[in-house]
Amino acid sequence: MISGSGRGIKTPVIVLNEKAYVESVGKKGVGLAQICEEVAAQHNVSIAICPQQVELAKIASQVQIPCFAQHVDPVEPGSQTGFVTLESVKEAGAVGSLVNHSEHRLKIADIDFIVSRAASLNLLTIVCTNNIAVSKAIAELKPYAIAVEPPELIGTGRAVSKVDPAIVEDTVKEVKRIAKHCVVLCGAGVTNGEDVRAAIELGADGVLLASGVVKAKDQRAALVDLVSGLE
Amino acid sequence: MISGSGRGIKTPVIVLNEKAYVESVGKKGVGLAQICEEVAAQHNVSIAICPQQVELAKIASQVQIPCFAQHVDPVEPGSQTGFVTLESVKEAGAVGSLVNHSEHRLKIADIDFIVSRAASLNLLTIVCTNNIAVSKAIAELKPYAIAVEPPELIGTGRAVSKVDPAIVEDTVKEVKRIAKHCVVLCGAGVTNGEDVRAAIELGADGVLLASGVVKAKDQRAALVDLVSGLE
Amino acid sequence: MISGSGRGIKTPVIVLNEKAYVESVGKKGVGLAQICEEVAAQHNVSIAICPQQVELAKIASQVQIPCFAQHVDPVEPGSQTGFVTLESVKEAGAVGSLVNHSEHRLKIADIDFIVSRAASLNLLTIVCTNNIAVSKAIAELKPYAIAVEPPELIGTGRAVSKVDPAIVEDTVKEVKRIAKHCVVLCGAGVTNGEDVRAAIELGADGVLLASGVVKAKDQRAALVDLVSGLE
Amino acid sequence: MISGSGRGIKTPVIVLNEKAYVESVGKKGVGLAQICEEVAAQHNVSIAICPQQVELAKIASQVQIPCFAQHVDPVEPGSQTGFVTLESVKEAGAVGSLVNHSEHRLKIADIDFIVSRAASLNLLTIVCTNNIAVSKAIAELKPYAIAVEPPELIGTGRAVSKVDPAIVEDTVKEVKRIAKHCVVLCGAGVTNGEDVRAAIELGADGVLLASGVVKAKDQRAALVDLVSGLE
Repeated sequence: MISGSGRGIKTPVIVLNEKAYVESVGKKGVGLAQICEEVAAQHNVSIAICPQQVELAKIASQVQIPCFAQHVDPVEPGSQTGFVTLESVKEAGAVGSLVNHSEHRLKIADIDFIVSRAASLNLLTIVCTNNIAVSKAIAELKPYAIAVEPPELIGTGRAVSKVDPAIVEDTVKEVKRIAKHCVVLCGAGVTNGEDVRAAIELGADGVLLASGVVKAKDQRAALVDLVSGLE
Repeated sequence: MISGSGRGIKTPVIVLNEKAYVESVGKKGVGLAQICEEVAAQHNVSIAICPQQVELAKIASQVQIPCFAQHVDPVEPGSQTGFVTLESVKEAGAVGSLVNHSEHRLKIADIDFIVSRAASLNLLTIVCTNNIAVSKAIAELKPYAIAVEPPELIGTGRAVSKVDPAIVEDTVKEVKRIAKHCVVLCGAGVTNGEDVRAAIELGADGVLLASGVVKAKDQRAALVDLVSGLE
Repeated sequence: MISGSGRGIKTPVIVLNEKAYVESVGKKGVGLAQICEEVAAQHNVSIAICPQQVELAKIASQVQIPCFAQHVDPVEPGSQTGFVTLESVKEAGAVGSLVNHSEHRLKIADIDFIVSRAASLNLLTIVCTNNIAVSKAIAELKPYAIAVEPPELIGTGRAVSKVDPAIVEDTVKEVKRIAKHCVVLCGAGVTNGEDVRAAIELGADGVLLASGVVKAKDQRAALVDLVSGLE
Repeated sequence: MISGSGRGIKTPVIVLNEKAYVESVGKKGVGLAQICEEVAAQHNVSIAICPQQVELAKIASQVQIPCFAQHVDPVEPGSQTGFVTLESVKEAGAVGSLVNHSEHRLKIADIDFIVSRAASLNLLTIVCTNNIAVSKAIAELKPYAIAVEPPELIGTGRAVSKVDPAIVEDTVKEVKRIAKHCVVLCGAGVTNGEDVRAAIELGADGVLLASGVVKAKDQRAALVDLVSGLE
């Protein structure tokens, strides 16, 4: 699905979490994925998407940009009704998964299981964290990426990279000290190119966002504005 | 996707839960769905399938038999990362969802939420139960179907309809007393046509099964044997 | 600890859930239990309390009114670190447990396990529900009592018995139709004697409440006002 | 309840988790706590106990050795029915809590919440881990103690300190590198003084165990044997 799987995706990157919004389901989800693909090509920037779970295989087969699952369950293939295995994520054509999103927290032993197993399957894990201490803890598990998102800023439109630059800067510094090659993203409140630029200047390798694009009146315009922060 | 959505599916029915087996993921999942479709057509019987979660939209677009999600989360569309909404299940082209499978139990208030919301979306719910008391409790919530599966028989190859006929017979009787039109399935250990026939003779409207077909050396042959119990 | 355990407690009853409030922890929890005991004796009414979990054995040994656990886990005695068994609740001197409180919902199969096992241990279960449909479902499991609490009224001071009398009246009617001897309580927003009287007049066997007493400036006065609704 | 609370407990230490065994409930739980207290005094060694949850306040008021909760929930005091707050643990007279036991795993953000809040309340946290990677992750959160327990050895009678000495030695080394003053315990399969001595020789500050004492025919003799490893 993407050159670079296994070795990682091109950074800096914008990772778009489609969540379970009405604006990103069904045909709208496919449309949004195509917008991301087109904007990535036109602006020569790296954009990855996280489609709604039941649409992962469908959308991953229709676009050439990297797709991530929004969540994966800490289980091996087998008698696991309604759970999402890493193996099914891989077969779906995705390059990896978000892990431990603030809306879908996991137990530490399960994050360790997922991160290790994903690595052995050549899948990428983007583990979400809520502060610097937890970011350091997760860095010890050596995931592909860490996305720090202070919960109090999520969905506010007040970007972490503007409102709380220290958390971004310190997370980058501490995580890279523990796990040199770990990609560090920041999220929460990111809505425009200026927010993205601020994140990159603080050392982040990209941003993770959702409502800023998905719920924008003009999704394409919102995305074009965002990628201007990478250019 | 299916004539009958909303009004229900044709009974007696065989509902095949693909779980998260390696034998039902990716191309194998598509292949298994196609086998089900072909056998249903050739033998003029009703077969429904529950693909792996991330493949639901893909598979539902490729076969004409009814597809169910294996699980749905008790959430409305919105900021729900990695959760599966009923709305996304519907957009995926599925006709409904398994609910409360023994491997994925739900809280009673959440089952009530899902059953009610599914009905308003014209989606079908097949709620799994573990005994007669719980079947009666669920019947009060008026789901589309109840599938009773004694946990101790699941995956054993010892069919509930042969080993414990009373639980099937009594569940049918009690559920239909409370909710006259509720479809009643039985599961656990069902592996061949004789097991299916026994279930139907006990009053069940069909069976829910998984490993008996998914893990069979010859999936098509296993399915053909099963449907012989409906003919 | 209480005459009547096993056969039930005297009704009409006021069940006071101490939750995890700062006003009901440690010495304050003991003090509140003693106030309840004194008011029950002085006014010859039935009051039961649910102390904070780690204080259950201590408080149950210090008062003569019935004590309930606030929650019990669906496990048998054994390797269950940090879980509360029905057996430990019984050894603590409690007469039973709240089950499925709106702040601590349980899976339907687990409620069935707890209700059945409690009955075999001669312990009383008060299962909380959120609406009439769920009340009917739970009634099929034959618990000792059902406490219906519309979530939207909990903690509001707007009593369910005044604001939504139909839900109380219909729950009583439907539950007793399914399980004739089941005690029916109502909760949510109950704060004074008038609310209690209204509940009793609607057919309820008592009320379940928390903040109306625990967080009152004068806990004794609040309780005395409440019990006036029983007199 | 104990000199040393806040500054920690005397090491090397044996921490006895009473779990939810029938052999440690009610009067038997009190008796077991008293045995621990007597053996600790007679042999001048440090023993801490984790009573069953509903008995915590009762037992902590009856013995002079340090008591820990078996589990604490990641919640602040308030409307939290059936949950155990750190504040209630403190009021109960306990010195702290086990956290994230293998039978009661927690989300990473919740462990961070509990460890931080416990420190501010002068309570001690013993966080259980399953391997070296997770031990390092938890060390970044700076708990009072880490107890590494390979799940495959728990309850086997095959002591981690004999069967897998490297995991003990490496956990001690890695944890103390990240958090110099963090106490490191080991658990899983520890049943006699030789196992304890091996743990101490590998650098551990003590052991965490359960069935080896609780389910012993002669609990006192088992404990006396264990403490011989500390002498």
